[in-house]
Amino acid sequence: MALLEPFGAELNLHTGVMESSKQLIHRRLSDMRGMYVNEAAETELQSAENPMIYEVYASEVPEETGQVLYCTTIIHPGRVGDEYFMTKGHFHSLRDRGEIYLGLSGKGYLLLQTEEGEPRAVPMHPGTAAYVPPFWAHRTANVGDEPFVFFAAWPGDSGHDYGTIEKIGFPQLLVSRGGQPVLVDNPRFSGVSG
Amino acid sequence: MALLEPFGAELNLHTGVMESSKQLIHRRLSDMRGMYVNEAAETELQSAENPMIYEVYASEVPEETGQVLYCTTIIHPGRVGDEYFMTKGHFHSLRDRGEIYLGLSGKGYLLLQTEEGEPRAVPMHPGTAAYVPPFWAHRTANVGDEPFVFFAAWPGDSGHDYGTIEKIGFPQLLVSRGGQPVLVDNPRFSGVSG
Repeated sequence: MALLEPFGAELNLHTGVMESSKQLIHRRLSDMRGMYVNEAAETELQSAENPMIYEVYASEVPEETGQVLYCTTIIHPGRVGDEYFMTKGHFHSLRDRGEIYLGLSGKGYLLLQTEEGEPRAVPMHPGTAAYVPPFWAHRTANVGDEPFVFFAAWPGDSGHDYGTIEKIGFPQLLVSRGGQPVLVDNPRFSGVSG
Repeated sequence: MALLEPFGAELNLHTGVMESSKQLIHRRLSDMRGMYVNEAAETELQSAENPMIYEVYASEVPEETGQVLYCTTIIHPGRVGDEYFMTKGHFHSLRDRGEIYLGLSGKGYLLLQTEEGEPRAVPMHPGTAAYVPPFWAHRTANVGDEPFVFFAAWPGDSGHDYGTIEKIGFPQLLVSRGGQPVLVDNPRFSGVSG
């Protein structure tokens, strides 16, 4: 492993913007086709404005064992039908790698599932250190009216497995009922054998 | 590895206090005997008030490969002679493990050295993501008039080697000159062969 130079990157603790990041990920609704349960609402919203769902400002640390990768994530406020704007979600390619989130502004939820489809949900707001233990798939959603912003750090050799979630989804949906976030079973969840 | 439950721990993004932490580390001046270069000032200050130098609120994540440990550190403002209040500093026991810091309030410096005694310094303020690459020993110091608070995350199997730094020190000291922080050579630095 080459010896890396220490560095400081400046990020805005409220907006999450990290100006120096050369790895800015944008995900519009069209980049998440089929991930929201209400297909009619998805099609309509995509045709109308195809909104930006979330942005990620990633660090430029090598993806190697022993490094610590980090990023800021900004999930915009909004819903597709009843379902709150959310990230795609993933398992780590190395399943036994965890992750730590630190809520910076706005409010949201960390949604998780085991490989057996066991769900969990952890509410997050500014100052919540939300822990994703090894083996848990993780996704986040914005349940507020302003951007939900958090910092994340994870082992450099974790890798990302988005494909499994694209195929099976999450066991629960986070939807608005009377303006409040409620977890409901995902009727399309196909589980590990799906 | 046992499957851990996800959780959220609440911390104060300004003060760094994490109420739920059961692993609060306090280091007073007497816990750092011999780490500041001005021995007369150290002895006098220790006799007078033996001030709290820094506090760490640690997570309760197992120290295992794949986990991500995290903490908040609060370094109080002050100096021992000209030298700013600082942490003890350490290498990771597994030398090839990195760490990420996120400045939350106040201002300070991340001080580093390689195993060959090559020094570096990264200024930190709120929003600075300061990266400690694998192989670098790291210490932080408060150069402001209020507490310097930061969040840290590192691989669960890193371990801490405080002994090497207790023996050799850091190659540079961070001292106040006319009210400004300045790096000067440490006259007592003994290096790797010390």
